[in-house]
Amino acid sequence: MTLPTEQLLPALRNVLPTLKIDTAHDSIEQACTDWRKRYRTDALGVVFPENTDQITAIVRLCKAHGVAITTQGGNTGLVGGAVPVLHADRPHLLLSTRKLRDTLKVDKANLTITASAGFALQEIQQAADQAGYLFPLSLASEGSCTLGGNLASNAGGVAVLRYGNARELCLGLEFVSAAGERCGDLRGLRKNNTGYDLRHLLIGSEGTLGIITQACMKIFPKPKASAVAWMHVKDIHAAVRVLEVLQSQLFSEISSYEWMNTIAVGLVKNHFGYQAPKTLEHPDVEHVLVQFDSLDTAEALNGRVESVLESLLRNPSLGLVNVFLAQNLSESKSWWQIRESISEAQAREGLNVKHDVACAVSRLPEFHDKALAELRALALNIRPVLFGHLGDGNLHYNVSGPVNTPSQSFLEDHQEVISQVVYKVIQEVGGTVSAEHGIGQLKADLLKEITPPANYGLFKAVKQAMDPDGLLNPGKMLL
Amino acid sequence: MTLPTEQLLPALRNVLPTLKIDTAHDSIEQACTDWRKRYRTDALGVVFPENTDQITAIVRLCKAHGVAITTQGGNTGLVGGAVPVLHADRPHLLLSTRKLRDTLKVDKANLTITASAGFALQEIQQAADQAGYLFPLSLASEGSCTLGGNLASNAGGVAVLRYGNARELCLGLEFVSAAGERCGDLRGLRKNNTGYDLRHLLIGSEGTLGIITQACMKIFPKPKASAVAWMHVKDIHAAVRVLEVLQSQLFSEISSYEWMNTIAVGLVKNHFGYQAPKTLEHPDVEHVLVQFDSLDTAEALNGRVESVLESLLRNPSLGLVNVFLAQNLSESKSWWQIRESISEAQAREGLNVKHDVACAVSRLPEFHDKALAELRALALNIRPVLFGHLGDGNLHYNVSGPVNTPSQSFLEDHQEVISQVVYKVIQEVGGTVSAEHGIGQLKADLLKEITPPANYGLFKAVKQAMDPDGLLNPGKMLL
Repeated sequence: MTLPTEQLLPALRNVLPTLKIDTAHDSIEQACTDWRKRYRTDALGVVFPENTDQITAIVRLCKAHGVAITTQGGNTGLVGGAVPVLHADRPHLLLSTRKLRDTLKVDKANLTITASAGFALQEIQQAADQAGYLFPLSLASEGSCTLGGNLASNAGGVAVLRYGNARELCLGLEFVSAAGERCGDLRGLRKNNTGYDLRHLLIGSEGTLGIITQACMKIFPKPKASAVAWMHVKDIHAAVRVLEVLQSQLFSEISSYEWMNTIAVGLVKNHFGYQAPKTLEHPDVEHVLVQFDSLDTAEALNGRVESVLESLLRNPSLGLVNVFLAQNLSESKSWWQIRESISEAQAREGLNVKHDVACAVSRLPEFHDKALAELRALALNIRPVLFGHLGDGNLHYNVSGPVNTPSQSFLEDHQEVISQVVYKVIQEVGGTVSAEHGIGQLKADLLKEITPPANYGLFKAVKQAMDPDGLLNPGKMLL
Repeated sequence: MTLPTEQLLPALRNVLPTLKIDTAHDSIEQACTDWRKRYRTDALGVVFPENTDQITAIVRLCKAHGVAITTQGGNTGLVGGAVPVLHADRPHLLLSTRKLRDTLKVDKANLTITASAGFALQEIQQAADQAGYLFPLSLASEGSCTLGGNLASNAGGVAVLRYGNARELCLGLEFVSAAGERCGDLRGLRKNNTGYDLRHLLIGSEGTLGIITQACMKIFPKPKASAVAWMHVKDIHAAVRVLEVLQSQLFSEISSYEWMNTIAVGLVKNHFGYQAPKTLEHPDVEHVLVQFDSLDTAEALNGRVESVLESLLRNPSLGLVNVFLAQNLSESKSWWQIRESISEAQAREGLNVKHDVACAVSRLPEFHDKALAELRALALNIRPVLFGHLGDGNLHYNVSGPVNTPSQSFLEDHQEVISQVVYKVIQEVGGTVSAEHGIGQLKADLLKEITPPANYGLFKAVKQAMDPDGLLNPGKMLL
């Protein structure tokens, strides 16, 4: 027997008198709009639980009243995963984790930090830093995205090559199930073979299998020395060859390996004036930014990096054209600024068709060449602004229209065909259509289309098993 | 409508005329006996499929005939997971993966090896080695255990501290579901957020959710230099303090950190004559064997290791008594031989009560002291033979009876109470009763007893979703 949905809020106030419940129109509107402002929906209200017990009570009451729950952290997702999808017969409650901040502790001997889901990523980084350690997960939105959101979406970022994504950094998590029970564990074990791994099921499930409330994450000794190189390569084939040799000699030191095509670096110069290192006789090179970090001395690290890079330059078959080593922190920062300004430079050119794809590193060049050839065959005068975490096999494959063409109408006319080409080719090389951004609402149709039916059937069976009433974030990921 | 079970083998011969089906009494008896010979059961026959398609057909026919399937790799497990549990109304087919050997390929630029489940772990290591790379998973049974078994049991071993266990090494796997469908993926992606992570659900599921047929595993550049140290520490508290400081300075170089108590090293001396380094004025020290590996030169690695170890010795509050650095390969091998001979030395003393426990590294000393105090309070004159992967928080906490007491009767009388103490205390410190050996038949009761009901309920729901007919390895892990 389901209780009337309009009685949910009175019941919550009765059972949890200290729970903050916000039903102001503006608050609901703000919380129900994703930050790209593509989705504007509605909810009965926004609740701000402060601990796991409150969440178990909220879930049980929602279940009793037939109200769906969308969990939201920093609301920084790119696929509409953190705002409700409305169905006529199913009202939503929006559960914000921002006040879920009751635990934050570092265990130095275990190299872990245990934190509530509501802390901002930057706060976790700072807590680790103050204890003398590094929490390596790092994203553009780290000031506002939350640990819970990072885990629910299996966030990536610029240090995945060395430290892994959110999934690899997690040693345990606590969550509230669709039945309103406290589940998981926070023991921080590096070895534990006692049943199915619920942790990895929850990570990347985008709030559809449970509500992540706390997690135990790996931390690392802080690097004592860093070296940053800017490399000119003939093309992406050369970038992959150079990476292979670099990893054979400096595997433990490489933290980031970011590739950018000629157009991407040119756009940053045009819009911001940031100048990348130049090789005068080769204006059309492509670019790689590499960061090395070490617990060894700066002298030792620089010596090794220089010696390896020099040996690479002596091998012309690699396609490495030139190498620059940052002479000081301000130079390395200015180079990182180029990498980090590409998205904004491209935005200043107008709207563009974005893709977040990945495949095996070895197949990236094939993907790059083939996708480009097929896009060029469309004769749309596209400008491919390509860059990304090449070391992870992950490219942000963004396509702008021709110069001096209204980008809005270009997108309306051609976005679909461009994405079809990119998604077709990435699948031909065994790749994925969502490397780090997830599925949410935006790619739910796409996921169903591209997933082998046997796998999709298991996704649905798992969802049905973990959330039989479809209470948690309905309309996301699975259709 | 279930078909008669006795028609399964004729149907298999009909549908898969080339499939090897062994129904000889001796073959079945051998395959249905685990290698510790604790479990002797039965099956209709043993099948040896050679590819995934054959397995999909086998599963479908078993489903149609109501016959359960137990999958077996090298049959080296310690918990009876790879031999059938018989039920009166449910015959079993034993599916051996040993002939599943159709794929074995290295991708250097992606740093992966993709292999069929039936290859022995040692064969995978050798294939990586021949390509110039390291596959770091390493276990005592590596000559006969299989990749599929390693993944189904989430195998650990001596290099987990640096490279992770089987789970962390896996970038993708293919499996056959209980519906007889080919599932999963072998794309070798380092970033992929497109649906629930079926890979991690299968890893560690002990053949109860699907049959793993192939996997894509990480490989690494081969270390160019190694250094091995034997350390004397005051006690396990000192061993943990020393690890913390070592990791802050040599995190990327430490591959193994193995602790052994005084009794364990003494037993190896008594039975095999292997002599560990000695500190004459401190005969009662405990021992730590540390291995460092690096892509740097031997000179550079040795220089750093020596300098760090010297600085540790200058800090008496750590409890580090003495340090020896292996002067050559034969010395480091002889030290590793001591570590690797403990189990056999203890076996020569007679039977003992074995435990494979883990907790947060920071809480290991508390566990150690408390368990020992409670065991000593039993006044049984036990001899704790304690050793293990301290860097992973994992101890093999084995208890022998008093000297010159028949071990068989000691175990009969006291095994249960000893295990109760060890399992009680490891749980009090937030630890696990099975760090790397898994559950199988042996610990299925224990798993049910110690798992919070909310988690156990989700395990059962996932099993029901993935294998609604209970076809796959029934009687294992879950009751």
